Amino acid sequence: MVREFHPPARILMGPGPSNVDPRVLLAMAKPLVGHLDPEFIQVMNNLSALLGQMFGTRNDLTISISGTGTSGMEAALVNVIEPGDRVLVCINGFFGERMADIAGRCDANLRTLSAPWGQAFDLAMIEKELRAFHPRVLAIVHAETSTGVLQPLEDFPKMLKDFPDTLLLVDAVTSFGGLPLRIDEWGIDICYSGTQKCLSCPPGLAPITFSPKAVEKIKNRTKKVQSLYLDMNMLGKYWGSDRTYHHTAPVSMNYALLEALRIIDEEGLAKRYERHRRNHLALVQGIEAMGLKMLVAKPHRLWSLNTVSIPDGIDDGQVRKTLLEEYNLEIGGGLGVLKGKIWRVGLMGYSSSQANVLYFLTVLEETIREQGFEVPKGSGASAAREFYAKNS
Amino acid sequence: MVREFHPPARILMGPGPSNVDPRVLLAMAKPLVGHLDPEFIQVMNNLSALLGQMFGTRNDLTISISGTGTSGMEAALVNVIEPGDRVLVCINGFFGERMADIAGRCDANLRTLSAPWGQAFDLAMIEKELRAFHPRVLAIVHAETSTGVLQPLEDFPKMLKDFPDTLLLVDAVTSFGGLPLRIDEWGIDICYSGTQKCLSCPPGLAPITFSPKAVEKIKNRTKKVQSLYLDMNMLGKYWGSDRTYHHTAPVSMNYALLEALRIIDEEGLAKRYERHRRNHLALVQGIEAMGLKMLVAKPHRLWSLNTVSIPDGIDDGQVRKTLLEEYNLEIGGGLGVLKGKIWRVGLMGYSSSQANVLYFLTVLEETIREQGFEVPKGSGASAAREFYAKNS
Repeated sequence: MVREFHPPARILMGPGPSNVDPRVLLAMAKPLVGHLDPEFIQVMNNLSALLGQMFGTRNDLTISISGTGTSGMEAALVNVIEPGDRVLVCINGFFGERMADIAGRCDANLRTLSAPWGQAFDLAMIEKELRAFHPRVLAIVHAETSTGVLQPLEDFPKMLKDFPDTLLLVDAVTSFGGLPLRIDEWGIDICYSGTQKCLSCPPGLAPITFSPKAVEKIKNRTKKVQSLYLDMNMLGKYWGSDRTYHHTAPVSMNYALLEALRIIDEEGLAKRYERHRRNHLALVQGIEAMGLKMLVAKPHRLWSLNTVSIPDGIDDGQVRKTLLEEYNLEIGGGLGVLKGKIWRVGLMGYSSSQANVLYFLTVLEETIREQGFEVPKGSGASAAREFYAKNS
Repeated sequence: MVREFHPPARILMGPGPSNVDPRVLLAMAKPLVGHLDPEFIQVMNNLSALLGQMFGTRNDLTISISGTGTSGMEAALVNVIEPGDRVLVCINGFFGERMADIAGRCDANLRTLSAPWGQAFDLAMIEKELRAFHPRVLAIVHAETSTGVLQPLEDFPKMLKDFPDTLLLVDAVTSFGGLPLRIDEWGIDICYSGTQKCLSCPPGLAPITFSPKAVEKIKNRTKKVQSLYLDMNMLGKYWGSDRTYHHTAPVSMNYALLEALRIIDEEGLAKRYERHRRNHLALVQGIEAMGLKMLVAKPHRLWSLNTVSIPDGIDDGQVRKTLLEEYNLEIGGGLGVLKGKIWRVGLMGYSSSQANVLYFLTVLEETIREQGFEVPKGSGASAAREFYAKNS
């Protein structure tokens, strides 16, 4: 007999999932309605409206994909790429690599542009490739979950003005809901995210939006989208006025997302971004006061995901194990080339709080001191507290 | 401002979702742990074990896909089909058509075999095609959700003994957990389902299993699986001992599935199947006593999904609207060629109860009488009650 599962009370400060507001958890405990019930269709309409507002877009085709953030990435790419299409993918981390992997599976004419993991792209570099390659799709990560890098996108419309046929495709899995993201203003044609990061909703859905230009490309495909499950021509009819059956929407997950978006709406985006910024800055103060270093240069740090370089002589696995087992605190390790070299410390949505910042600094200090890293007692938490006091 | 969603108390007797045990709803309200947390890995191990037990299989690769039943169908097909592979799809309903659609998107060398919607396949017919076409994959629907037809599979091992290279791929979305399904005994190589039918868990996951022969085919692919999200070579490593990050598993949905499977385990499969059979038979008694007709011939009726022919002169949409709005009761309409011709009445999992059978018969009678269909008062419910009394 398998026993009932009673989860431990984890503080989730990894790369996602983040902790979830009890209001969102309770929304999932509500009884189900059918996926074509008029009441559920109202839920879908409200989701679409709230997501559009948060994305900063008027795009009609703004929905939640019935899968995790990775399915959002796949939906974004497979819909707009046809075999042979020129696709330029910018890679400065694990998720850029993954976009290239998926574009390859679409038989794209693929070109990749690389920057070191931990750095953002310089626009001149991208522009040069655009002129040489004239891609149909330019794919880039706004918030690289593997490195903690924020890619500025404000100047993309200027860069792309000579490329009216190029679709700009952006991964915003770790920024959506935590940092400014302006789809229409920044000329983004396709953008996806996940629910378990700055939205603080459990994993399982992927918000996504397509501009009219992207929709046009999808409608005029000569070959069917290679994924039926993620085929936006079909999904658009389910979310649109037709309401044609496509799949059975994850009803409870959509309840959760609606409640999570309502909470964000109540807080207000500007206040929410500022909260993420403030807690991030406090964390950085503490980290640096302890003699540790951030991986990413100041202008390109994500507020939602802080990457801390692991000092020489410190055992990554042992630290994370201690934090989890003794302090119920989850942080993430590095991926790919950064494995063993960084910790990924999330401050996302509900998890982005002063309490979490101070707790993390306190227990990290204790844990690395046990491994012989010399750090003045209370230095991290004390620096963060000072920052909060000055910026209240 | 979007208001909090308070779902109406629907009785779900459509083609899914079915009603969910409050224990399962409450499981989703439990706090989250990370998707790589040792405690969550234990949840995954337990899920895999319970699913294997229910599938009647020793297959190692038995997991829940992080998407709905349709993603399960796609995962089943895209993993074992490479471009040019001979694939034979048996079509006697909407979901057979859909399998052929997906196989086409895999660039399969596709052949389809059709039977009328509402009928099962005769094995001689399939065997003839097998001999002529020697497919690498034979795909068939065990429980056609669009028609209510059960396809007997017991004799497939005998039929397939001369075709050692053929993989048998079965859609069990509407049978899994409600009717006998024996993966190993029936020689099924790939089988998928959904959570929102006879498992009575919310929609959002797709249980799936692959035989060693299917795994061999996937490992030896020369071309990558066209879906990264559903790539079993990667998913196998996440669910296997490697625990390599692939995607962020929908933590809360997996809590729900675990609790749903625990409930099934407590009831016992034999008792559960018998409950589904009994309520189905009672419903049929009632339907026929009212002068209505079942679409499917007796030997091929699903216990979980009952398809009732709509009598001439009855307005399908109006009946379903009345049931939903006045009686909070959801039943399904027909799909494709059966649109407007049948009702699909689910008796799945938690929704398969004597109370639901009697309530449905009572309110249906009332509703069709209002539309001028002559039916003796109380005839349906009374016949069902008699059946229950005789078979208690």
